[in-house]
Amino acid sequence: MSPNENFDVHIIMGSLSDEAVGKKAADKLQSLDIPYKVSVASAHRTPDFLEDIVSHSPAKVFIAIAGLAAALPGAIASHTGRPVIGVPVSGKVNMDSILSIVQMPPGIPVGCVGLDRGDNAAILAAQMLGVADPKVAEAVNEMRVKMASKVRADCSSVEL
Amino acid sequence: MSPNENFDVHIIMGSLSDEAVGKKAADKLQSLDIPYKVSVASAHRTPDFLEDIVSHSPAKVFIAIAGLAAALPGAIASHTGRPVIGVPVSGKVNMDSILSIVQMPPGIPVGCVGLDRGDNAAILAAQMLGVADPKVAEAVNEMRVKMASKVRADCSSVEL
Amino acid sequence: MSPNENFDVHIIMGSLSDEAVGKKAADKLQSLDIPYKVSVASAHRTPDFLEDIVSHSPAKVFIAIAGLAAALPGAIASHTGRPVIGVPVSGKVNMDSILSIVQMPPGIPVGCVGLDRGDNAAILAAQMLGVADPKVAEAVNEMRVKMASKVRADCSSVEL
Amino acid sequence: MSPNENFDVHIIMGSLSDEAVGKKAADKLQSLDIPYKVSVASAHRTPDFLEDIVSHSPAKVFIAIAGLAAALPGAIASHTGRPVIGVPVSGKVNMDSILSIVQMPPGIPVGCVGLDRGDNAAILAAQMLGVADPKVAEAVNEMRVKMASKVRADCSSVEL
Amino acid sequence: MSPNENFDVHIIMGSLSDEAVGKKAADKLQSLDIPYKVSVASAHRTPDFLEDIVSHSPAKVFIAIAGLAAALPGAIASHTGRPVIGVPVSGKVNMDSILSIVQMPPGIPVGCVGLDRGDNAAILAAQMLGVADPKVAEAVNEMRVKMASKVRADCSSVEL
Amino acid sequence: MSPNENFDVHIIMGSLSDEAVGKKAADKLQSLDIPYKVSVASAHRTPDFLEDIVSHSPAKVFIAIAGLAAALPGAIASHTGRPVIGVPVSGKVNMDSILSIVQMPPGIPVGCVGLDRGDNAAILAAQMLGVADPKVAEAVNEMRVKMASKVRADCSSVEL
Amino acid sequence: MSPNENFDVHIIMGSLSDEAVGKKAADKLQSLDIPYKVSVASAHRTPDFLEDIVSHSPAKVFIAIAGLAAALPGAIASHTGRPVIGVPVSGKVNMDSILSIVQMPPGIPVGCVGLDRGDNAAILAAQMLGVADPKVAEAVNEMRVKMASKVRADCSSVEL
Amino acid sequence: MSPNENFDVHIIMGSLSDEAVGKKAADKLQSLDIPYKVSVASAHRTPDFLEDIVSHSPAKVFIAIAGLAAALPGAIASHTGRPVIGVPVSGKVNMDSILSIVQMPPGIPVGCVGLDRGDNAAILAAQMLGVADPKVAEAVNEMRVKMASKVRADCSSVEL
Repeated sequence: MSPNENFDVHIIMGSLSDEAVGKKAADKLQSLDIPYKVSVASAHRTPDFLEDIVSHSPAKVFIAIAGLAAALPGAIASHTGRPVIGVPVSGKVNMDSILSIVQMPPGIPVGCVGLDRGDNAAILAAQMLGVADPKVAEAVNEMRVKMASKVRADCSSVEL
Repeated sequence: MSPNENFDVHIIMGSLSDEAVGKKAADKLQSLDIPYKVSVASAHRTPDFLEDIVSHSPAKVFIAIAGLAAALPGAIASHTGRPVIGVPVSGKVNMDSILSIVQMPPGIPVGCVGLDRGDNAAILAAQMLGVADPKVAEAVNEMRVKMASKVRADCSSVEL
Repeated sequence: MSPNENFDVHIIMGSLSDEAVGKKAADKLQSLDIPYKVSVASAHRTPDFLEDIVSHSPAKVFIAIAGLAAALPGAIASHTGRPVIGVPVSGKVNMDSILSIVQMPPGIPVGCVGLDRGDNAAILAAQMLGVADPKVAEAVNEMRVKMASKVRADCSSVEL
Repeated sequence: MSPNENFDVHIIMGSLSDEAVGKKAADKLQSLDIPYKVSVASAHRTPDFLEDIVSHSPAKVFIAIAGLAAALPGAIASHTGRPVIGVPVSGKVNMDSILSIVQMPPGIPVGCVGLDRGDNAAILAAQMLGVADPKVAEAVNEMRVKMASKVRADCSSVEL
Repeated sequence: MSPNENFDVHIIMGSLSDEAVGKKAADKLQSLDIPYKVSVASAHRTPDFLEDIVSHSPAKVFIAIAGLAAALPGAIASHTGRPVIGVPVSGKVNMDSILSIVQMPPGIPVGCVGLDRGDNAAILAAQMLGVADPKVAEAVNEMRVKMASKVRADCSSVEL
Repeated sequence: MSPNENFDVHIIMGSLSDEAVGKKAADKLQSLDIPYKVSVASAHRTPDFLEDIVSHSPAKVFIAIAGLAAALPGAIASHTGRPVIGVPVSGKVNMDSILSIVQMPPGIPVGCVGLDRGDNAAILAAQMLGVADPKVAEAVNEMRVKMASKVRADCSSVEL
Repeated sequence: MSPNENFDVHIIMGSLSDEAVGKKAADKLQSLDIPYKVSVASAHRTPDFLEDIVSHSPAKVFIAIAGLAAALPGAIASHTGRPVIGVPVSGKVNMDSILSIVQMPPGIPVGCVGLDRGDNAAILAAQMLGVADPKVAEAVNEMRVKMASKVRADCSSVEL
Repeated sequence: MSPNENFDVHIIMGSLSDEAVGKKAADKLQSLDIPYKVSVASAHRTPDFLEDIVSHSPAKVFIAIAGLAAALPGAIASHTGRPVIGVPVSGKVNMDSILSIVQMPPGIPVGCVGLDRGDNAAILAAQMLGVADPKVAEAVNEMRVKMASKVRADCSSVEL
């Protein structure tokens, strides 16, 4: 499944420099067969463009990827009542992006995943879609089974 | 709407000492008219009981509330492919519960909200349900409109 | 000088709970005879209201006061090319508001002052106005002379 | 515009090792057509030289760049009532320079920008000058428009 | 002594990526002539497999090696009353794995050793076995004597 | 069982101010019927007294309780090959005692438990003794069963 | 011995609010019979006054007490080649004053003692004086003997 | 001046791996013409050897260099009333060695200098010796004059 305009998840990166983390999210969504779109929009440099993107997006779930004073996830959440997942991007400080995403004020939540964990953001988005779509929930479960098999295989072959 | 066995959101606290944060989540779900249930189960003291609760729960979304080395959200996520929201509880260190919930490994995401933010966990859960249920999405939006009105009113009356 | 609509500095608080810090800023501006206005607007709960306030404000300088994932200063800076001073508000974590204000991305600066230092934000705003207005620069210098005298007096009287 | 003795912004670095960050500030001022001068002076190794530089500087705004226990911005602010912008320089700890600049005591503010963000210090300085000089304010706004266009272009071309 | 199924110490790594730290533990146990086994099992990806491994293990002591939100040591401790030693693995944050292991809740202790210190985990395991087995205690003491000799030799040869 | 000179666990506190944490350890050992002794000795103020205590102690396991730059656990470990459990005591910084105990150098491990967790230190000590003494292992397991029952009871009665 | 103008140690506090910590230093110096003087001078509010105090002080050692972005110890060290001891004062952040004092740049050292440890600063000052003055060295040693006796007495009486 | 047995400053490193930092201290002492000796001794691996070295050392001042849970400076201070300077060595955490040295308990001070700042430790040691030895004090002052000249020269030549 390739990206198109009839998508369920909207990946928004605060800057092109977040591309590696965005790719982890896109790849995982693709492997789960979930239609998505990727945009670049900055909460600080293009607040109106961001609002425009969010308010016209047909997405059911947003994934926001940003580093430093990572305002992007919260800015998206300020423009929509749909769920927003935030991915803090690593840099020289790390606690900056983590805390800027986790510590949202009352009323406007963002669900923060781990540093640079675009892949986990995609899985969490799939889990949200899976609340209503059994096919997606099943795809997540299959992925989980494969992961578990990989761990068991690693356990069988490890030798130190 | 009072809690019953036909619920959409399962609030699980790691200990009774997390009750104040759990109450924020319960109150918010109630105000959004979302059926929920509250349990107490410890990832460390009752791993089997926890697995039992999770695997038999009809919930569409889990809210896990825990402090210290907050393993509860991740432990729930290890037993279900349904979405899990983690709420770090404050204590003497604070970064312990935040990092223990945010920094989940690849494959098993948890969506972390702010320290002691049971209310935001409830709203995020509602947003997830709202992906498929327009009535819940509408309730969230109404709540957001009221919050915004409150801010505007505060702005009109503030005087320093 | 009391607040009015012909003001130079706009103090914007993210929530009424930031009032104590806002008052420090207001009191200091008043003592420096600088016209100001105080508003309450949330970057997350009222993004449009905030944009409205900023774009219609005649202020030459903005002071933004916020705690937690303190997006307010950056959100104001996203809507105006005028200078923005950010005041992190203390809470359970403290590094959250400091890093959320300091670590702004390239292109959109915010000048961050100390935790809860509404007074210093007011002085920094006065210094900015003083770049063009010698009367304000003089008021700042007089305040500095008084502060120095106070330290010298404390030194004369201290006895341990 | 090249640096000369009739300058508006004085960039002072605590050591030649801060040159890369200083260059970001100088380049940005140059692109905004703002006259500046660059000096090296250490708060700890040359307190008198620093005082001399500050008290004889015609600058309207100071940019102070320093790492470790970054006392330079505060030391400059102790010698002048004009506004001082502090730029923390990264190293092995990072929180050292950030906190040494942010946490100034009451009465003597410094406006702290992000770690290694010489560019943002230059823009903030321009914004301060822009309070009284519409030409500079306009230059800042043009730069902001260009930045926004760049983000929109990145959004159009991104493909993951 | 090579690893076999009649072992005293069970080294469990959360992922193959922790292999370097696991090897430090294995090498040290080997040098102390203590039978051990190495497994890979993830608290999050394979909770049942982990429980299975722990409950069927004849080990007297467990060494759990994990990074990020390092739930593995606590998860092992949740399934056995035998002592568990946790080794936090370094990454981009470091305080995440340290605090996730140290800050265990009342009732379910884990003994945390230093970041990436698989070797020290092995020695601590040996010390525990040495409580009842004088041969192991003696091996530990011999190792300590050698270490001390090495320090004295370094002292004799150092020249700066 | 009251403390006497024929004891298995030696609780050593760095100062009388650590008494509350020491009492948690003593109480738990008593409830597990494990003979213990409590001493006060400072690594920094009484190094020789500490060495004397450690080298003459018949204990099989040491519990060291200390705050600030908590050198006590490591100092004990420097004088004996028997296992040492360290308990960091909370104060104004907290990360000081945690890191001073966790980050022991290669060769001399300390097993660190959670901040102020004297109780968990006692349980970990019991688990070590239980490696060789089935009666103690059984006592630990009984305590674990009771804890689990308490959680299940809390779950049955909780109502939010 | 009461304070007078013929003193060996100069205690300088950045503000009267540091008085409690200053008193710990003064009391300890008094108990060691070392002549001292206490001043109040701010590195930021009164840089010239501070320089004046330092350059005219007959002290052999300086103790500088300050919180927040604690520039005072470094500022004193910038004006004299005599040894300077820095005491970080606790507040809302704590790591600010510690890092601002510890992380001095090459060439201008400050010896940092613990948070709020005015007493230890006094002892360290005494130890410096004791390099040349056997009477002071003897007083320090007597104090150490008393401290050790106190610990031994606590050990004899403790009962948990 | 080369190292010999009639020395004033004793540099003690916790391990040969601290050699680079130790060399900075040795080089600076040599440039100040101060006799010194370098030893390697571990607080944790060789407590008796360390006590032996300290108690037989003719040094007037000790410089202790250590990383991780840096107990060495405090251990030296526990064995002598002479002044001890601690140098935290950088690693994966950094706050571990800083806090382990800074946060000494009441009664036993260590003067902590910056991370990896062996050079500053040497200068601080020289300043202590300079309390009684004008020749050393003069050497420190000459070094300070040269440093200041270097900064002024850098200022003259800098061009950005």
